[in-house]
Amino acid sequence: MSEPDALHLDIIRRVEDSLKAQGLMRHLGVEIACIRPGEVTLRLPFRPELTQHHGFFHAGATSALADTAGGFAGFTLFPEGSTVLTTEFKMNLLAPANGDHLEAVGRVIKHGRTLTICQLDVFGIDGDSRTHVATGLQTLICMQGD
Amino acid sequence: MSEPDALHLDIIRRVEDSLKAQGLMRHLGVEIACIRPGEVTLRLPFRPELTQHHGFFHAGATSALADTAGGFAGFTLFPEGSTVLTTEFKMNLLAPANGDHLEAVGRVIKHGRTLTICQLDVFGIDGDSRTHVATGLQTLICMQGD
Amino acid sequence: MSEPDALHLDIIRRVEDSLKAQGLMRHLGVEIACIRPGEVTLRLPFRPELTQHHGFFHAGATSALADTAGGFAGFTLFPEGSTVLTTEFKMNLLAPANGDHLEAVGRVIKHGRTLTICQLDVFGIDGDSRTHVATGLQTLICMQGD
Amino acid sequence: MSEPDALHLDIIRRVEDSLKAQGLMRHLGVEIACIRPGEVTLRLPFRPELTQHHGFFHAGATSALADTAGGFAGFTLFPEGSTVLTTEFKMNLLAPANGDHLEAVGRVIKHGRTLTICQLDVFGIDGDSRTHVATGLQTLICMQGD
Repeated sequence: MSEPDALHLDIIRRVEDSLKAQGLMRHLGVEIACIRPGEVTLRLPFRPELTQHHGFFHAGATSALADTAGGFAGFTLFPEGSTVLTTEFKMNLLAPANGDHLEAVGRVIKHGRTLTICQLDVFGIDGDSRTHVATGLQTLICMQGD
Repeated sequence: MSEPDALHLDIIRRVEDSLKAQGLMRHLGVEIACIRPGEVTLRLPFRPELTQHHGFFHAGATSALADTAGGFAGFTLFPEGSTVLTTEFKMNLLAPANGDHLEAVGRVIKHGRTLTICQLDVFGIDGDSRTHVATGLQTLICMQGD
Repeated sequence: MSEPDALHLDIIRRVEDSLKAQGLMRHLGVEIACIRPGEVTLRLPFRPELTQHHGFFHAGATSALADTAGGFAGFTLFPEGSTVLTTEFKMNLLAPANGDHLEAVGRVIKHGRTLTICQLDVFGIDGDSRTHVATGLQTLICMQGD
Repeated sequence: MSEPDALHLDIIRRVEDSLKAQGLMRHLGVEIACIRPGEVTLRLPFRPELTQHHGFFHAGATSALADTAGGFAGFTLFPEGSTVLTTEFKMNLLAPANGDHLEAVGRVIKHGRTLTICQLDVFGIDGDSRTHVATGLQTLICMQGD
């Protein structure tokens, strides 16, 4: 991609502001890795505060990360002044979620006026190794007004 | 129900031990409200560290709580020495999740040798008011050995 | 319940008309068992034309029945002149679907202006025996105009 | 791919035999379009017997087709003498399902000893136009013995 234009910079700012406004994302330690129209990648570094009983990332952390990545992906396509809510999502957990960090990619499959559908994929990154640990689908609703 | 017998006390101990072993549950502040064979209720008091951009509980917190309640519900029926993993779950978010605390009920619908299916329900408790904020379905797999 | 009033009779007529307009429901042999505001029960008698490779009802037949029961359940609450579309649904198949007939119950959990969420349950009826063969969740959208 | 080898021909025969053994697939008119290890494409020509109340393909037909495509995709990877059951699936309906025929692609994402996860995609084909009408996820279980 070429350098981001003004529209793109505006989208980046809106997503960054939204992330800062989410207490849970700060509490878990979620970082933005990449923002493009219709696709957002988030990163979650490993911490013992994120684990389940085997010491892997808890499915709840994996899912929270994926849900947020998808919500942001939809949000990049929504009109100024609107907000986004998840109405439903579904995750299949494919492999133990471990590694230095998780990476979640939310990608808009279908963008509608009211409903937007996203594909969610989470990868466990361990040095050079990248494992597909979860995949999911999500429905977002676009709400007018903040 | 009458007073818990030895079997029941053993189940309670196993669930409490498992909760303590989950870093994410401590980090979010999850508490056990009720443990019965095939049904576990968890509680999550409100904190700003759990919110999304409107100040409600984040769907990720709601889902992590529900997933864990269902996992424990299945775990109460699993043989000694086995462990539980979520293979998939799906949540429908019915209403904004706010209140003093959330309450998540995981209940086994179908208990099989390999797979166990749970219904997940989350309520937002605000003083005397109790709102159904999310419902879901979950598949657990029983793994032999710790 | 007491005898149906005029409103209820109108709902029954709307659901019956909608069923007749659905080629697939006639092709499978679906019958209406019970219509109440927010809850519709459909019945599907066994036929070899509905089977999978073991001679049980095919998951596709089970799911089509459940999806339609839920769609009708939502439709009973929708304003005159509107129509209903399924935006997503999820089924967990709990047991082999066999018996003289299937019975699917669609029940509205949350009725919203735009989106309505239903619980779907399917039972296999074999003489006096009634087995819970599938459970699911569904999101419906209310569309204005036919 | 080069011409199918003996293993591949054996897989094709097993899928064709399984389709013939499924009464519902014959009743709907489902045809095999393509069989590869881990990926199966099915086709469903339009008939008035497959419609919902607007004259489009019924979501139940779309889902039955997708579920079967995924089941076959998993089946191509299962050991001889085993059989496949769907334990759960979820569909998001993206657009009205119309056209001359539907095409459903089931693709294995994760192949495990017990559980196999598939992605399901359905397209409405209308002359040269191809619309993504549904996407889904599915869990299959491999059962030993017929």
